Amino acid sequence: MRRVRERYAAKETNMILGNVFRSIPEDLTEEVFDILAQSKDVKIERIVSKGQSSPSSRWYEQEQNEWVIVLKGEAVISFEHGKEIDLKVGNYINIPAYTKHRVNWSDPNTETIWLAVHY
Amino acid sequence: MRRVRERYAAKETNMILGNVFRSIPEDLTEEVFDILAQSKDVKIERIVSKGQSSPSSRWYEQEQNEWVIVLKGEAVISFEHGKEIDLKVGNYINIPAYTKHRVNWSDPNTETIWLAVHY
Repeated sequence: MRRVRERYAAKETNMILGNVFRSIPEDLTEEVFDILAQSKDVKIERIVSKGQSSPSSRWYEQEQNEWVIVLKGEAVISFEHGKEIDLKVGNYINIPAYTKHRVNWSDPNTETIWLAVHY
Repeated sequence: MRRVRERYAAKETNMILGNVFRSIPEDLTEEVFDILAQSKDVKIERIVSKGQSSPSSRWYEQEQNEWVIVLKGEAVISFEHGKEIDLKVGNYINIPAYTKHRVNWSDPNTETIWLAVHY
């Protein structure tokens, strides 16, 4: 189940400030999703994983494109056509809408911090 | 002058892979802008600065919102109403459309790597 929370107080109207490496929840038994900015068509979120992977044989298939970058930790994304992509710190990938994908693995020893732009 | 380049070969159709910390140009006498992903309404770009600041008394004023995060280095953004915000690694800020701002300072000793989402 997705836990979506709106974090980080707006210090000025709409001018949301924060640090993507801070305010990491202690309980990471489930992945944690935080919306950092949002408009009608775009959502920017932080995802924190620790050892999770998508349920096997269950694919994400999204109506929007997703551009995602790993800022800490490491994870492997796999695609329906068989390709696996290892994402280390700084690696990004653009996942076009309706491209079936899943997270095969994320580092169990440290938090993996992702930044995702759904557009 | 803005140098906008499309970098990072698409390894698969539209599935652009890259690393935001690699392929840093040697010549940073001007800031370098790279488009990492783009749609009709959204542009995700990497900006690499080294000591640059915006020309004094010249404000950026954009039609789109800009969400920006510093991933390496450090910079100071100032706003027309006088507020200055120091952005260190991991700090992000959402700059609403038509909010006048400028880069007051960026670290002259190392590259400052920004990720900006115009939306």
